Amino acid sequence: MFHLLDIIGTMAFAMSGALTAMHKRLDPFGVFIIAFVTAVGGGTLRDVLIGRTPVGWMMNLQYVYVIILGFFLAIIFRKKFDKLRTSLFLFDTIGLGVFTLIGLEKGITTGLHPVICVALGTMTACFGGVIRDILCNEIPTVFRKEIYATICIFGGIVFFGLRKLNLEDDVLYLVTSVVIISIRLLAVKYKWYLRAFEHK
Amino acid sequence: MFHLLDIIGTMAFAMSGALTAMHKRLDPFGVFIIAFVTAVGGGTLRDVLIGRTPVGWMMNLQYVYVIILGFFLAIIFRKKFDKLRTSLFLFDTIGLGVFTLIGLEKGITTGLHPVICVALGTMTACFGGVIRDILCNEIPTVFRKEIYATICIFGGIVFFGLRKLNLEDDVLYLVTSVVIISIRLLAVKYKWYLRAFEHK
Amino acid sequence: MFHLLDIIGTMAFAMSGALTAMHKRLDPFGVFIIAFVTAVGGGTLRDVLIGRTPVGWMMNLQYVYVIILGFFLAIIFRKKFDKLRTSLFLFDTIGLGVFTLIGLEKGITTGLHPVICVALGTMTACFGGVIRDILCNEIPTVFRKEIYATICIFGGIVFFGLRKLNLEDDVLYLVTSVVIISIRLLAVKYKWYLRAFEHK
Repeated sequence: MFHLLDIIGTMAFAMSGALTAMHKRLDPFGVFIIAFVTAVGGGTLRDVLIGRTPVGWMMNLQYVYVIILGFFLAIIFRKKFDKLRTSLFLFDTIGLGVFTLIGLEKGITTGLHPVICVALGTMTACFGGVIRDILCNEIPTVFRKEIYATICIFGGIVFFGLRKLNLEDDVLYLVTSVVIISIRLLAVKYKWYLRAFEHK
Repeated sequence: MFHLLDIIGTMAFAMSGALTAMHKRLDPFGVFIIAFVTAVGGGTLRDVLIGRTPVGWMMNLQYVYVIILGFFLAIIFRKKFDKLRTSLFLFDTIGLGVFTLIGLEKGITTGLHPVICVALGTMTACFGGVIRDILCNEIPTVFRKEIYATICIFGGIVFFGLRKLNLEDDVLYLVTSVVIISIRLLAVKYKWYLRAFEHK
Repeated sequence: MFHLLDIIGTMAFAMSGALTAMHKRLDPFGVFIIAFVTAVGGGTLRDVLIGRTPVGWMMNLQYVYVIILGFFLAIIFRKKFDKLRTSLFLFDTIGLGVFTLIGLEKGITTGLHPVICVALGTMTACFGGVIRDILCNEIPTVFRKEIYATICIFGGIVFFGLRKLNLEDDVLYLVTSVVIISIRLLAVKYKWYLRAFEHK
């Protein structure tokens, strides 16, 4: 089940990357690379920083195939994107929850402090998008709009809070991802965002 | 022989990086760093992702010296660049072939799947230029123009196709690099390129 | 003592990153990430390239706490920045000296060649700022202005020159950092900088 959600999230991230890249008028190779880094960039950065190499997608080709599929779907449906916007948003939100959990779990497995685990969860969920934006020559969206990353951090704190209660792992994972996904949906519905600082 | 071609490719990449950086009016330190990352950035990214650290150029100073030489040559000949364009293009094309092979080989040595090896070959040949463009605040050229990366991918597929025939390694390397170099020359001569997708 | 200077340097780098990010009108998460990468980005890149993982700040939370403190100080004092400019510049200069030394030392510990150690010292001191500028969608300042990086390279050469004299480590560290800090102060006072190449 969890694995299926990981696949759904990966595909959603790949498709959103591909759409951004097509919008920037990149050629097919560029579109593929942007789809790829959006989907696995956060996890790749995490793996490199904790020394888990060769990085994840090199050891499990499933990710590569899912991204290739997402790439083609994005190309085929690129003109019908408006109708798909809601589905894609939902899948992306699932990705946000699942990727945060995967990052938290890798941090715990590596024996790192909870603060670092929360950072790794946020990195896994958000830094694919950061790399996508840098490659597209934009200031990363996650640094400017929406409370995307803040939700991951909050989710990570909830996770470690619940963990102290000695819940079973399954319950822990389920509750954390439901929290992340719900807050994201509420945040978009009610337009919660972080304001830039008033600067001199 | 192969090693000599590696040196030629490294120098060509360093010179092309230095020329881009001077064009952007960077200071000498900036020009040197751009020359450096253009030459070894792809291989460095590859080494980091597969966990081969300290990365290649830290263990073999020859690359550093070749890049320093390329940096000075680019400075000295910067006003005569038009006359050197053809030679530099040829050297760059040699680099494309050799770097792809080196990436393929490191992937095989690390025991990775052929699909990942092809990705590593392409990364080794193309991502120095990607990092150069990001540092110069441009959308990477390889995502927009020319079929540069596509040739590396094709070369990688040819390599694994021929490998099934149990050819000797020397023949395998020679044929693959000739294929990559020839297609690049034809691609530039006949202006083959990938078109961006028509987008709504 | 050395450790205290490391903390001061880290905080100064974090504050300068936060100020840049607020100037770019990023949201609080963006400001925090830019503060973070400015402070530890150079050392993180160094650790990844030499294979020292999990990277430094994951193993020693002190850095994380100092950056959080610097982040809040930058927010609180953001409108009084003009009055703090001199102190911040001094702290930043201390960071330049200390970070260069830390990079040199990690290179020596890893058994790398002096040329590579000098590169690692420069990377530790300067590449946090490079990553900051890339995330803010600017061509890195260190490639265009001031002789920031050149001073680190010079400091590294002085370090290895003195090392041949068999000085004690303490003296070696002290002299090198005094050299780096003094040249930086002189460079800014007398407006020394590297000129871009005249280009056709």
